Amino acid sequence: MSAKIPYKTYLSETEIPRQWYNMNAVMKIKHEPFLNPATLQPCTADELKAVFCEDCVDQELNRKDLYIDIPEEIRNFYKMYRPSPLVRAYCLEKALGTPAKIYYKFEGNNTSGSHKLNSAVAQAYYAKKQGLKSVTTETGAGQWGTALSMACAYFGLDLTVYMVKVSSEQKPQRREVMRTYGAQVIASPSDTTEAGRKILKEFPGTGGSLGCAISEAVEKAVTSDSCRYVLGSVLDHVVLHQSVIGLESKIALEKYGEQPDIIIGCCGGGSNFGGLIAPFMGDKLQGKNNIDFIGVEPASCPSMTRGKYAYDFCDSAQITPLAKMYTLGCGFMPAPNHAGGLRYHGMSPIVSALYDQGYMRAVSVEQTKVFEAAEMFARIEGILPAPESSHAIRVAVDEALKCKETGEAKTILFGLTGTGYFDMSAYKQFNDRTMSDSIPTDADLAQGFATIPDIPLNK
Amino acid sequence: MSAKIPYKTYLSETEIPRQWYNMNAVMKIKHEPFLNPATLQPCTADELKAVFCEDCVDQELNRKDLYIDIPEEIRNFYKMYRPSPLVRAYCLEKALGTPAKIYYKFEGNNTSGSHKLNSAVAQAYYAKKQGLKSVTTETGAGQWGTALSMACAYFGLDLTVYMVKVSSEQKPQRREVMRTYGAQVIASPSDTTEAGRKILKEFPGTGGSLGCAISEAVEKAVTSDSCRYVLGSVLDHVVLHQSVIGLESKIALEKYGEQPDIIIGCCGGGSNFGGLIAPFMGDKLQGKNNIDFIGVEPASCPSMTRGKYAYDFCDSAQITPLAKMYTLGCGFMPAPNHAGGLRYHGMSPIVSALYDQGYMRAVSVEQTKVFEAAEMFARIEGILPAPESSHAIRVAVDEALKCKETGEAKTILFGLTGTGYFDMSAYKQFNDRTMSDSIPTDADLAQGFATIPDIPLNK
Repeated sequence: MSAKIPYKTYLSETEIPRQWYNMNAVMKIKHEPFLNPATLQPCTADELKAVFCEDCVDQELNRKDLYIDIPEEIRNFYKMYRPSPLVRAYCLEKALGTPAKIYYKFEGNNTSGSHKLNSAVAQAYYAKKQGLKSVTTETGAGQWGTALSMACAYFGLDLTVYMVKVSSEQKPQRREVMRTYGAQVIASPSDTTEAGRKILKEFPGTGGSLGCAISEAVEKAVTSDSCRYVLGSVLDHVVLHQSVIGLESKIALEKYGEQPDIIIGCCGGGSNFGGLIAPFMGDKLQGKNNIDFIGVEPASCPSMTRGKYAYDFCDSAQITPLAKMYTLGCGFMPAPNHAGGLRYHGMSPIVSALYDQGYMRAVSVEQTKVFEAAEMFARIEGILPAPESSHAIRVAVDEALKCKETGEAKTILFGLTGTGYFDMSAYKQFNDRTMSDSIPTDADLAQGFATIPDIPLNK
Repeated sequence: MSAKIPYKTYLSETEIPRQWYNMNAVMKIKHEPFLNPATLQPCTADELKAVFCEDCVDQELNRKDLYIDIPEEIRNFYKMYRPSPLVRAYCLEKALGTPAKIYYKFEGNNTSGSHKLNSAVAQAYYAKKQGLKSVTTETGAGQWGTALSMACAYFGLDLTVYMVKVSSEQKPQRREVMRTYGAQVIASPSDTTEAGRKILKEFPGTGGSLGCAISEAVEKAVTSDSCRYVLGSVLDHVVLHQSVIGLESKIALEKYGEQPDIIIGCCGGGSNFGGLIAPFMGDKLQGKNNIDFIGVEPASCPSMTRGKYAYDFCDSAQITPLAKMYTLGCGFMPAPNHAGGLRYHGMSPIVSALYDQGYMRAVSVEQTKVFEAAEMFARIEGILPAPESSHAIRVAVDEALKCKETGEAKTILFGLTGTGYFDMSAYKQFNDRTMSDSIPTDADLAQGFATIPDIPLNK
């Protein structure tokens, strides 16, 4: 059969999913709700709608509909870059000499360079539908900001992006792409917000963090009526939009009668991983498969493997609702020599719950090992991967090599979330052999944990 | 019918062409041969084989076989990134309000970011087949060098790339991609060759040129037995390899019963344009169609629209064979404020002959107009185009707007050769409104023309 499977499988445009897949509907134990930090009561829809777009809030709180319709306008945008290819990694399999069958779903063939566009389009559409004039967001590595710039240009929305300062300096090209799409890009922390000014005063030399950029973007959004904040990961509605990745993968694999034994994705905020696994995990939750799901995070920002499962703020200025999630503490900042993205202190509540309930594993990997895998993959498979995506490559390669030892012909699916074209300063470090790992000590972690709020629910 | 045409058409992998299309076989008046500058006699195959790979030379001189087999090893590599999509630009058509149907063949969805990979793979394969250990080349904007790095990594060849100094400074990211694929990258002019040292001495502050980088790469190749030089454009065998673009486009269009009225491509050395038009032009040469072929060049390097049709050197140090082509003179260098690629002083001999014989038109466009089209295209079609490709976009938009005036529903096909992800310093100039045009004066041109060799054939 395998000889008939092409290198790349593109579904037809009519096969682009018409509905997203909502894992919440099939979770027996639902994850804890967001809390209002002042009252410690679950956030109401109205409270959330002051920050986020209406339809996104409704999706966020929807725990009963397994399938949620994708509006035609969003599907039309999807057609500009989707379906994304499901690739059979024949060359990698051969180079590794593994009996495993390796597939990857490649989300990098669009100008944002990653999967982020899947949710950016949806959120921009809903903002426009609601009659908003503008949205704000934060961006770390720049993929999310780029994706949202593209979506806002398409739907005619103004956009302000708070870009983590260190990334903005490492990646001026990303900033320029966003500007080309008409976005205003501000390095964070900035003096344009209360939150930014406060952090600048406390940590004058800081390179910023996602948590801090979120604080600034949220502040900007809640101080205007015609503006809302949009987030590129972590939240359930973002995971929902990303389920298009898993749905397309499942349709393509089923064409070949393939059922994955292992599914691997990198985990920053968790939206790519959550979206990739969604329909497969939905089946597992219903007892229909026993897939080994592996979320891969950087050793320098190990929220699942070394974090605490607790209520924490989503931002470092502590102005957002509290989320129950695996977290290193909202004040945690990864070491500056951590090169790639995946630097968020927490993990998507739904992914955290799946991990807590034992439906998936988490693995952390050091960045030099990640770049070794990235270089190998680039040379063998012909795609220069994003550092983020290379976390998944690393573990996929490790699992394939285990198969070589045991002789098992497992089917491995991993998410190749994006390309590394804007990450060449990190690659340069690797090429120059000046890259080091940056694993936080227990003392570093303790410092972060101390920023987790001291509330009764966390006792 | 048009409602049934998807945004993107991907052929299946089995539809990847099994043969390239050789326009030379159907040209009634063949273009003039390369000459040995010492004897002014046509170069023999043996002379050329001292510089180029054997199979490439045989293809270069083949003027009788219309179809030339693509070896299986090359087709296997093609499967990693081909077939490339043929896109119906519905969004652009709507934004322009034109009755024209606009299609583009998008060659940018691979890590080299352009069509260059189509020939890089072929030339690396033939070098390996011949038992060579290494190859050398030059690169301008960096697309060709990146493509060849990828191909050499795949086939296990060493590679030295001479990168035009100004590009190397504008695009350190490109250099890093090449290094990631294992290539040695040297800024040209360099002190590693006689040619480089000579140019450095004559023009100490020069930013280099493609012609100069070619001199260095050729010198390095001819001074070693196990090394040959490979070129990314201009030559017939490169145009031949690029015919895969036109062949795939033709198959896809025929599925919808579409026959283009206009085909537009950007022209630097001419390989993308030559490859895109190949099978369509072959039909025109046989009286089977009357397509309007338009080659688009930058106003700052207008080899067809303002150049001379003469025998000239392919490099600035005057060590290569003489080619009969449209040329600005081998000593011509475009103004430093010219941002993109397409900076070669000459034009592919076969494209030059087609132009001279009246089978195609040439148009030149200013770079600010090009970037206006690029920005519009990025926002509307969701792909950030390379500055080179944007020359074709500019003219496609202009032609579509003419259709709007006349009410004609012409079918326009253009080549979108690549993405602009590594061209953000040029985009920054445009975003900052600091970009200017750089149209050579007649005096500038006269200076270049003075470097065309004074030989009897040019009288």
